[in-house]
Amino acid sequence: MNVREVETEREFLARLEHGADWREELEELAAAEDLDAAWFTAMGAVQDAELWYYDQDDFEYKAARFEEPLEVAACVGNISLLEGELFAHTHAVLSRRSGQALAGHLDRATVFAGEVYVCELDTTLEREHDDATDLDLWL
Amino acid sequence: MNVREVETEREFLARLEHGADWREELEELAAAEDLDAAWFTAMGAVQDAELWYYDQDDFEYKAARFEEPLEVAACVGNISLLEGELFAHTHAVLSRRSGQALAGHLDRATVFAGEVYVCELDTTLEREHDDATDLDLWL
Amino acid sequence: MNVREVETEREFLARLEHGADWREELEELAAAEDLDAAWFTAMGAVQDAELWYYDQDDFEYKAARFEEPLEVAACVGNISLLEGELFAHTHAVLSRRSGQALAGHLDRATVFAGEVYVCELDTTLEREHDDATDLDLWL
Repeated sequence: MNVREVETEREFLARLEHGADWREELEELAAAEDLDAAWFTAMGAVQDAELWYYDQDDFEYKAARFEEPLEVAACVGNISLLEGELFAHTHAVLSRRSGQALAGHLDRATVFAGEVYVCELDTTLEREHDDATDLDLWL
Repeated sequence: MNVREVETEREFLARLEHGADWREELEELAAAEDLDAAWFTAMGAVQDAELWYYDQDDFEYKAARFEEPLEVAACVGNISLLEGELFAHTHAVLSRRSGQALAGHLDRATVFAGEVYVCELDTTLEREHDDATDLDLWL
Repeated sequence: MNVREVETEREFLARLEHGADWREELEELAAAEDLDAAWFTAMGAVQDAELWYYDQDDFEYKAARFEEPLEVAACVGNISLLEGELFAHTHAVLSRRSGQALAGHLDRATVFAGEVYVCELDTTLEREHDDATDLDLWL
């Protein structure tokens, strides 16, 4: 296991912009506040969503698109650097009116309303290619 | 996007009371410890639950009731003021014996067991009516 | 309700080891860093998983096994002492390619990739038998 001690520097609460993209909002927050490394949790609702699932045999993400309003029951992720750009690695659990839950890697989703808590960490998270998974991982 | 820098003041661990209401327990904790603004994550199990889904066309919450024991796989939310009262905005992911997940805005649920971590934030979160969503939002 | 004020001491970011067990990795981190009490959130992907559901009538966990790759959309839990051993009480929300979500108490899962944020808390969390639930609870 790779582990490093970190320290929370600044903390932020954000309300995401209605109509904007959920993940882009997180990346804009990171850019605006100069956050290279951060951890966040969030909740809210979206107007649609694209969830990705990583195919561990093909080493490729497969998309599932949901063109319907959904609750964001839970969202966990982190801000890191991917090829020099700020990247919000975002996983989320969404839900339908019936209570049915959908989940995965959140690539995009149109914000209906979003409440986010972000902790800046005093470290550098730079994603690099990992051979075992063919993913870009930090540490 | 609306963003504000905050700072964690006091932190709490709580074990929710067996048989009590999950959301009311969070609001009682907030009242007892004088927390106007806080962020929490939690987990546990409930004896039943009512999950709400916001209908983005009708601007109304629709309820789905589950009269059965469920795990609380994840719970994310925050404490704010709504019309002068402490309100625990609570989203949760629940699960059945098969592993099937249910999720949404948690209005009520009878605690079987609950473990919660709460961070008090040095800010004021006052919910006000938002025209775009017809929800009460802070910031 | 049982509530105690705590304070975050050290914080850690970890990347779980590909091929290792998800929960054991968390317990090894706790052992390596001497964490008796901690709270964590995490995300990633697993190669398989065993989710437990607590039967509130029989007072027994029932297992559901998934021998397939799954995303870890959200993971919330804490480190405590159970019969003198470090125990990572771990709940998780997993997902399939279709976006279908599965959730529950995560007993075991083979890590594909895992990103974890852990906060050490300056308290002692010792699980003891609770009569009402027949579970081992702290506080």
